[in-house]
Amino acid sequence: MLNRVVFEQKLTKETFTELHQYKKVAVLVDENTKANCYPIVKDLLPDHHLIEIKSGEEQKHLGTCEQIWQSLTDLRFDRKSFLLNLGGGVIGDMGGFCAATFKRGIDFWQMPTTLLSQVDASVGGKLGVDFGKLKNHIGVFRIPEKVVIHSGFLSTLPAEELRSGYAEVLKHCLIADSKEWNKLIAKPISDQNWEEVIPHSVAIKEGVVESDPQEKGLRKILNYGHTVGHAIESYLLDIPNRKLLHGEAIAVGMICEASLSSKNTGLTEEELKEVSSALLSVYGKVALNDEDIPQLHDYLMQDKKNEGEQINCSLLAGIGEAVFDKFVTWEEIQQSIDFYRSL
Amino acid sequence: MLNRVVFEQKLTKETFTELHQYKKVAVLVDENTKANCYPIVKDLLPDHHLIEIKSGEEQKHLGTCEQIWQSLTDLRFDRKSFLLNLGGGVIGDMGGFCAATFKRGIDFWQMPTTLLSQVDASVGGKLGVDFGKLKNHIGVFRIPEKVVIHSGFLSTLPAEELRSGYAEVLKHCLIADSKEWNKLIAKPISDQNWEEVIPHSVAIKEGVVESDPQEKGLRKILNYGHTVGHAIESYLLDIPNRKLLHGEAIAVGMICEASLSSKNTGLTEEELKEVSSALLSVYGKVALNDEDIPQLHDYLMQDKKNEGEQINCSLLAGIGEAVFDKFVTWEEIQQSIDFYRSL
Repeated sequence: MLNRVVFEQKLTKETFTELHQYKKVAVLVDENTKANCYPIVKDLLPDHHLIEIKSGEEQKHLGTCEQIWQSLTDLRFDRKSFLLNLGGGVIGDMGGFCAATFKRGIDFWQMPTTLLSQVDASVGGKLGVDFGKLKNHIGVFRIPEKVVIHSGFLSTLPAEELRSGYAEVLKHCLIADSKEWNKLIAKPISDQNWEEVIPHSVAIKEGVVESDPQEKGLRKILNYGHTVGHAIESYLLDIPNRKLLHGEAIAVGMICEASLSSKNTGLTEEELKEVSSALLSVYGKVALNDEDIPQLHDYLMQDKKNEGEQINCSLLAGIGEAVFDKFVTWEEIQQSIDFYRSL
Repeated sequence: MLNRVVFEQKLTKETFTELHQYKKVAVLVDENTKANCYPIVKDLLPDHHLIEIKSGEEQKHLGTCEQIWQSLTDLRFDRKSFLLNLGGGVIGDMGGFCAATFKRGIDFWQMPTTLLSQVDASVGGKLGVDFGKLKNHIGVFRIPEKVVIHSGFLSTLPAEELRSGYAEVLKHCLIADSKEWNKLIAKPISDQNWEEVIPHSVAIKEGVVESDPQEKGLRKILNYGHTVGHAIESYLLDIPNRKLLHGEAIAVGMICEASLSSKNTGLTEEELKEVSSALLSVYGKVALNDEDIPQLHDYLMQDKKNEGEQINCSLLAGIGEAVFDKFVTWEEIQQSIDFYRSL
């Protein structure tokens, strides 16, 4: 289960040499990556077709998959054809799922264009789409032929997208690298050197995933912040003016789960304070009111990691060290949300 | 990639002991297997839920998958849950696909109840659904935890279903076992001993699949008869009163492709006659008229095995010996259909 991630500071025709082996090539974009990223690669690629979908997490469903499958069908793509997914997490997860299931699987590359997808979705082979309000509910595991990471794409991103992806960078440090955590929080996000930060962050994730590709054990530590974070993200997705970016929701989740960690798995009070204040200083405070809490319950109970009524969390034993398969009750989750709201 | 097929002459509670390890169990049925097969296993299973879909190849699409995924979601199935697919090829292919993609994959067993699914769909891990008129266009490879074959289910089948499945039994002999071919065609279908015939047929398929699980080479010989057969099956599916069962279509395909084999890969004229007359005696003649021929072209060009405009066939070098990756033109296919019509 080798994940072939390459970092390309400069994209050239050589980057795409391998694609000449395929009979047909398509590039999947949304309107943003079509305008901002596709011009950078267009003339470097062999002859190809463009498949465009609408941007946004709300497009990440089976209906959009059907459009993509139909486009591949109309283009008469066969098993020797190839799909290049050029975009953020939605393009990568959904385009990858479509490639992995079209005629039982054609080759594909991921070319993530956001910080979030470069440090997170690029590694591990998790592909899929949302189902109703349930995130990544339908999907498969499959490793792409290659992942090409070009940090130059980040200059095309709005500031809040960069900030959103940064939450995963911080998470990787919190679960596995206290030194890097200290280094990062000493500087504002605008001063980070992405050429260094991204490979470091990807290496942490790769190390974890390679030791446990099927998520039977250790890989679960990557879910730190995501049990509560995903529930909040899903719940707020459809509420006007309250929708959060993924990283913003995960930042809330990391604080809640740091609170759970201080009660259950040995994170000190001091560390809890450090995590909370560092994250709040980047992400600010998300308003959650009393009426939101019972709504979050249903989302939490549908988490893929649960077993029955037990909510499965990955928590911190300290900054730079995580533990997994920690089961907590809904009451404990509620208390952790109360902690967040009290900050 | 071990395929765990077990043959159970008698089903008992012990057959299902392993299912007690799962937190939740569901059985997927259609109205036929609910009435005829489910009563045989019901009291042998641990506590379980029943998910019912409508029978028929025309139900094998993403819309039905959404029903199944929704049922699993409503039942709050988690990753430690389990799906038992009790039915023919549609239940197995589609239920397997739904299990393999629900929360990125839960465990499942196949319990094929038709001759066709027992000797064919039970082995090899091909899962999926039709897309528009394109058969098995969306899917994945995944080996179920177990395949349980109980030939007793065959007594619940209508005669034409048995005959349909028998085409795959004959195909396995034509591509790999001339002795068994001679044995089978010496007796009418009603005199066959399924307790012997099925394991023999499954063993042929297992041998081929194990040597090439990802269908990079040898496994393609299993497609003998299916290039033309699938196109005919797909084309006639929606035409009132002309719909064929899978095996009936494959029988036509096997005769056409035997004709291609006699021109391209060394099947003798005598062998071509033997194959044609044996198959016609079981399946009769399917009427194909001049207007059908151009329509078949589009279906053939969408075959997953093609490369560009070249139509990829697996053909016979003799009775009991097959070759693969034989590319033929549309004109050659037309001539083979003319041969069939001239019989």
